[in-house]
Amino acid sequence: MTRTLILDCIKKIGEDVKISGFVHVRRDHGKILFLDVYDRTGIIQVVLGGGVGKDLRPQDVVIIEGKVNKRPESLVNKNIPTGEIEIYSEKVEVLSKASELPFDMGGPQLHLELPTLLDFRSLTLRHPKVKAIFKIQAAILEGFRKAAKDIDCSEIVVPTIAASSTEGGAQVFKVDYYGHKAFLTQSPQLYKQMLVPVYERVFTITKAYRAEPSVTTRHLSEVTQMDCEIGFVEFADLLDLLEKVAVDTIKYAQENCQKALEEFEVEPVAFGKIPRLTLREAQQIILKEFSKDNTKEKDLMPQDEVDICKWAFKNHHSDFVTITHFPTKAKPFYTHPDLKDPEYSLSYDLLFRGVEILSGSQRINDYQQLVDSIKGRGMDPKDFELYLQAFKYGMPPEGGFSLGLERVTMHMLNLSNIREASLFPRDMERVDTRLK
Amino acid sequence: MTRTLILDCIKKIGEDVKISGFVHVRRDHGKILFLDVYDRTGIIQVVLGGGVGKDLRPQDVVIIEGKVNKRPESLVNKNIPTGEIEIYSEKVEVLSKASELPFDMGGPQLHLELPTLLDFRSLTLRHPKVKAIFKIQAAILEGFRKAAKDIDCSEIVVPTIAASSTEGGAQVFKVDYYGHKAFLTQSPQLYKQMLVPVYERVFTITKAYRAEPSVTTRHLSEVTQMDCEIGFVEFADLLDLLEKVAVDTIKYAQENCQKALEEFEVEPVAFGKIPRLTLREAQQIILKEFSKDNTKEKDLMPQDEVDICKWAFKNHHSDFVTITHFPTKAKPFYTHPDLKDPEYSLSYDLLFRGVEILSGSQRINDYQQLVDSIKGRGMDPKDFELYLQAFKYGMPPEGGFSLGLERVTMHMLNLSNIREASLFPRDMERVDTRLK
Repeated sequence: MTRTLILDCIKKIGEDVKISGFVHVRRDHGKILFLDVYDRTGIIQVVLGGGVGKDLRPQDVVIIEGKVNKRPESLVNKNIPTGEIEIYSEKVEVLSKASELPFDMGGPQLHLELPTLLDFRSLTLRHPKVKAIFKIQAAILEGFRKAAKDIDCSEIVVPTIAASSTEGGAQVFKVDYYGHKAFLTQSPQLYKQMLVPVYERVFTITKAYRAEPSVTTRHLSEVTQMDCEIGFVEFADLLDLLEKVAVDTIKYAQENCQKALEEFEVEPVAFGKIPRLTLREAQQIILKEFSKDNTKEKDLMPQDEVDICKWAFKNHHSDFVTITHFPTKAKPFYTHPDLKDPEYSLSYDLLFRGVEILSGSQRINDYQQLVDSIKGRGMDPKDFELYLQAFKYGMPPEGGFSLGLERVTMHMLNLSNIREASLFPRDMERVDTRLK
Repeated sequence: MTRTLILDCIKKIGEDVKISGFVHVRRDHGKILFLDVYDRTGIIQVVLGGGVGKDLRPQDVVIIEGKVNKRPESLVNKNIPTGEIEIYSEKVEVLSKASELPFDMGGPQLHLELPTLLDFRSLTLRHPKVKAIFKIQAAILEGFRKAAKDIDCSEIVVPTIAASSTEGGAQVFKVDYYGHKAFLTQSPQLYKQMLVPVYERVFTITKAYRAEPSVTTRHLSEVTQMDCEIGFVEFADLLDLLEKVAVDTIKYAQENCQKALEEFEVEPVAFGKIPRLTLREAQQIILKEFSKDNTKEKDLMPQDEVDICKWAFKNHHSDFVTITHFPTKAKPFYTHPDLKDPEYSLSYDLLFRGVEILSGSQRINDYQQLVDSIKGRGMDPKDFELYLQAFKYGMPPEGGFSLGLERVTMHMLNLSNIREASLFPRDMERVDTRLK
């Protein structure tokens, strides 16, 4: 008999089938044993008779042969697509025997502390609610690609090993590169800019690395960035485009993962018209509405991000706020100053539900101005030879932005720690197992 | 006036337009100056009158205002979509002035030695024929994602920093990870296997790193891998699936990039039924047909790969050959031996036009057998803690494969060096600029 996928059993009532999958839950009712078995298409209840399966346990990998029966009306489970049927079987083959689980995986929640969740990552990823996180993450990736293509971006592949650090600073990982010094890229920034004269509009999904010696709930050492870079645009165009890409990405994920999202009891994303504020305007609102004077700060404080998002939701029914015009000195060397007031820059962050998920700017596209800016930060233009070459041979006005995959995932699902939004999170304390 | 994209000028004959783009070629005919100007949608001929544009040069970034005219029948260029029109203009604004080019970029070919091609990468990527390579590469990526989804694979994101080297061996890049020793992953192998019990079928596109201290035309230090891993399958299923994914990927790229492929004068890919040979069978054919006795070798020699592909094309009208059953000892620890003859393994390579573009195997899915295999290679199971955990808690029979993006690109286009198939190739002599 060939394998029947679990979801396809719905069409086989009264027929004999063979399913393959994992035991999720086992319920022992004396003579009769109930199993919930899952494969990639779904989960189904199996009734075992004839005394078989007494030694089965969760995570055993099984092949089960039996007959698909309709359940009595009173026992229908409306929460799953196979809820009207079950399989009656007296024949179970164990393909792979699981060890006794260190904790119960059968409940709707996995009540574990974060270190345990990660110590047993190969196991905990199998819990339905954890699985759902990364189904949604896959939809965010797909949504971003669709959104980027909708605005005519071409996909590019950029390197992750570089000879100089992108944005200066010490927070880079060093690689021993055939005896030479190299770094893991902090962002695809310089490479995507070099591609603007080639394809005009480009996107890439790639890794970015930050050796931040701090442990917070919202930083990882290795993250996934979703980046766009766009030529022949001015600041106002960029604001339109970044909001469109971010909204389209999240809308796609929400529309394609409704079932998975239900597990998290989160409100649907509020897509009201996104308010745009300069940093200083946002700080004034925070002063007025929340009585906190951070009006001299060069960036929003974490609590400011929460507060201004509350304000946006209340006043604009938007889960997003766009913040512009951060101080030029606080932004990377390639950020274009606002000519009307060069102390501030043509930069932006997009906040989503209390946290920055996207940032970017209009870039400096003049060769000499860029060289001067590099020097002004105490860096050496020689370290940016190939990058500067792109500007030497013609570069249109351009800009771009970058979305953090794990941050978007985290805040769509209201997870309390970004580590939950990475299959195998990297931080200063852990690379799969704890560092000693 | 708002910008008109170049391709849209076709619909605006007789109208005034404003285009933005790069000067590709400039032809001086005395009083009249001709430009070819490109943007992301195409290229168009511009006729400059009124004495303007005398100081323009290739790669200048321009805004041009003028009128779209039909060309006389005798001057139509049938090779481009805008070949029936041109723009007459007396108004050019230079947005960004390019330096004098170090070589001519106006011809259909870019006749440069590889080191020069890479020394000026920010510039040479703008040549139409180089641009075409990475348009096709983008289509290969998209084709692979479609093919992987068609066989029900879920997308996953895997880490690139690991605490142990995947397959043993010294060819790994070391990373200073907060004072701890870490490595760049040689492949997503261990992580994709850990996800089989979660989603059953998974795919990922990710970076892989090899610190191979050799300079060949077909190795890079940083490559892009397109990987699938599939649960509840036997060896014969895997052969079907790998051939389907590889063929669907390449078919998609070919069908979606016909125009770009024409630039390379390559034959359409031959999709005859793919012959499947064991390594020993292939070596016997090579002995008989090409009089080379490599029948004792544990792998095909580079020339063997070329020869057996010639044989497959001649006898099966296939640009592909599947080679199976490599010696177990020559394959990584997770490779499943063939129980009928454990000296050989349930492994496979897919050859395409003379080179291996895909490899993989049925995996060992039994915990104890895997531990023994790790020990048998002189490695320590403790270094594989999280990986082994996946097998401790139930792992179905499974296998997978990995396609090399740059290799597929190279051999679809018959490029002579893999460096041409990477936007910013990494090797032991270069990270953007030459290492000193």
